Amino acid sequence: MKLPVGAEAIPICRPLLPAARRLLPYLERIDANRWYTNFGPLVVEFENRMAEMLECSPGEVLSAGSGTRALCGALLATAGWATSERPYCLMPSYTFVATAAAARACGYTPYFVDVDCHTWALDAASLVGHPALARAGAVMPVTPFGRPIANAPWATFTSETGIPVVIDAAAGLDAIASNARETLGDVPVVVSLHATKTLSSGEGGCVIWRKAGGITSALRYLNFGTFGVRRSDVCGINGKLSEYAAAVGLADLDDWPRKRETYLQAAKTYADEAAANGLDNYIVAETSYASPYCLFQAHTEEEADRVHSGLVSAGIGSLFWYGFGCHRQPAYQDMPRDPLPFTDSLAPRILGLPFFPDISKEEIGTVASAIRAALV
Amino acid sequence: MKLPVGAEAIPICRPLLPAARRLLPYLERIDANRWYTNFGPLVVEFENRMAEMLECSPGEVLSAGSGTRALCGALLATAGWATSERPYCLMPSYTFVATAAAARACGYTPYFVDVDCHTWALDAASLVGHPALARAGAVMPVTPFGRPIANAPWATFTSETGIPVVIDAAAGLDAIASNARETLGDVPVVVSLHATKTLSSGEGGCVIWRKAGGITSALRYLNFGTFGVRRSDVCGINGKLSEYAAAVGLADLDDWPRKRETYLQAAKTYADEAAANGLDNYIVAETSYASPYCLFQAHTEEEADRVHSGLVSAGIGSLFWYGFGCHRQPAYQDMPRDPLPFTDSLAPRILGLPFFPDISKEEIGTVASAIRAALV
Repeated sequence: MKLPVGAEAIPICRPLLPAARRLLPYLERIDANRWYTNFGPLVVEFENRMAEMLECSPGEVLSAGSGTRALCGALLATAGWATSERPYCLMPSYTFVATAAAARACGYTPYFVDVDCHTWALDAASLVGHPALARAGAVMPVTPFGRPIANAPWATFTSETGIPVVIDAAAGLDAIASNARETLGDVPVVVSLHATKTLSSGEGGCVIWRKAGGITSALRYLNFGTFGVRRSDVCGINGKLSEYAAAVGLADLDDWPRKRETYLQAAKTYADEAAANGLDNYIVAETSYASPYCLFQAHTEEEADRVHSGLVSAGIGSLFWYGFGCHRQPAYQDMPRDPLPFTDSLAPRILGLPFFPDISKEEIGTVASAIRAALV
Repeated sequence: MKLPVGAEAIPICRPLLPAARRLLPYLERIDANRWYTNFGPLVVEFENRMAEMLECSPGEVLSAGSGTRALCGALLATAGWATSERPYCLMPSYTFVATAAAARACGYTPYFVDVDCHTWALDAASLVGHPALARAGAVMPVTPFGRPIANAPWATFTSETGIPVVIDAAAGLDAIASNARETLGDVPVVVSLHATKTLSSGEGGCVIWRKAGGITSALRYLNFGTFGVRRSDVCGINGKLSEYAAAVGLADLDDWPRKRETYLQAAKTYADEAAANGLDNYIVAETSYASPYCLFQAHTEEEADRVHSGLVSAGIGSLFWYGFGCHRQPAYQDMPRDPLPFTDSLAPRILGLPFFPDISKEEIGTVASAIRAALV
């Protein structure tokens, strides 16, 4: 998958990471340290600054080379590798395939469960009695498009069922930071720092986990099973973030208050343009936290197709970010699943709109006009 | 595992990657492109330049976010995910645990086979009749300490047994480049670009594969199962190298002829010091290709322990790079295996010595003297 940079007059996504001159002071520290990976000083500083932003203690945040690997680290630390007795990892189908890929890479068979029609996410309470739990080694709820989900109900779920949970909050960094008390806790939460996200290290991810020993265990799994000494106590993988990637993340953090504001401002402009164009019931723009997404929510599939075609014709990027659900992907279509009526209804109606830090008011106006024209 | 940078007066390893000013032109291109990962132009250029160095065509080299992920990409592309009928991946125990970790992450159970006493590697011909092949989905020979192994015997092995092979040549980049005709072919070969290797992108790896369609398949597996379009045709992982990591690799390639020479020169100095100190039969220094290792090969375990202690006392770094074999690691001690008499005899006798691009003649002399003193 290539980022659709420059493919359209207004692309759906156009990441903006720190310029070279802002990386330079960090790169010079790397030169001086001659420490390039394996949990060097920049990685430690990055984790500590992320912890501060997330109202966590140092030691409650672990960096990883990608969001997928962060998911693997958290999953292995909570649930271990899949067993033949408990091969399933329950998850929504309405997510990017990285959720399923991470479970698969830890030996689990994804088992798709339908999402709640209001939250677009799995519901902890209603999952407690699910018959597939008898063969489930883990559950991986997803914060859809980064929308925050509460930690406590999933901790309760684990208490009641004995089944470990990892929350895939890939796009949810600022939603979490804006509400750390509710979104963080005993259940590990994983964010992505991929270039398409609001804050980025190029490729990267984090595990955020307020449970004693949790992060240490995840770190061990992401470092070939070793911790401190060169001895593999568990079967691990290589999930390390390099010092170079940490430099990018640190420089992006330096500018974060301003960059965050650009996302909020763009979302507000979308909301304003939606109002001006009579699209209040269609455009979902997050104005209370920085989200990497602005969405068009159609009432019908036909309406979504019409808008999608209209945007394509106008040279405007748009994307069904989660496709039509993982269960529609050839790789995952034969995985076990429940009936997924809400996913099947929702997925073809949610269309990603152009959204990036420096999208202009004019560009947003053009998008809104094109949508209005397509809806007429 | 921390790199033991600066822990000793003469550390075992002290990587030297391109200085910030040499990265700058590449970073400025990233700024201009606003393309930060997902197979951007710097990754493509890096792969093409690696292909040129390896006497390959463009399209025969694939970059990856780490050597371990490159192993996974090659393993999935040749053998797919493990099945219950063929759960084993045969491999030497005498390797860094990344070999076993990569197999595990693709669902395989490592099955350890003894190495040949001359090559320190698996022997293709003698493995053909191995009884465990009936349950093996793949074989993963390792080029020990990067020493070259021929490709053709393993291609023959696959023809005769039907079992796919991936060669883990983690430390073998220049050994391969120096003898591409013999070392490359139908069987995919994986190198690591980790900071401890001779050429590095910080974290990184490559698959080198001269077989039509091979690299495309590996790429798909390292990109969530997608290729070209946003559709997962197979269960993949995220194995992408970022543009930032590619920038580091490109800058290191720019200087490679000179850097390579520093490794060769250091090896030659080791060989000279060995001769001057009567250690010809003990010190293994590669002078025909750039290796990241210089080794002390003891005749007995007791001798190795004596030298190891002597070096520690003198503040000189040394390391049993592969431990005492993966089968001695707690994580892998219960994995199936053959009797491993040669691994058990070899592993405690091979001690890594300080070796890095700018190790001085004086430092090498100090190491040689300390070894001689310990042996007396």
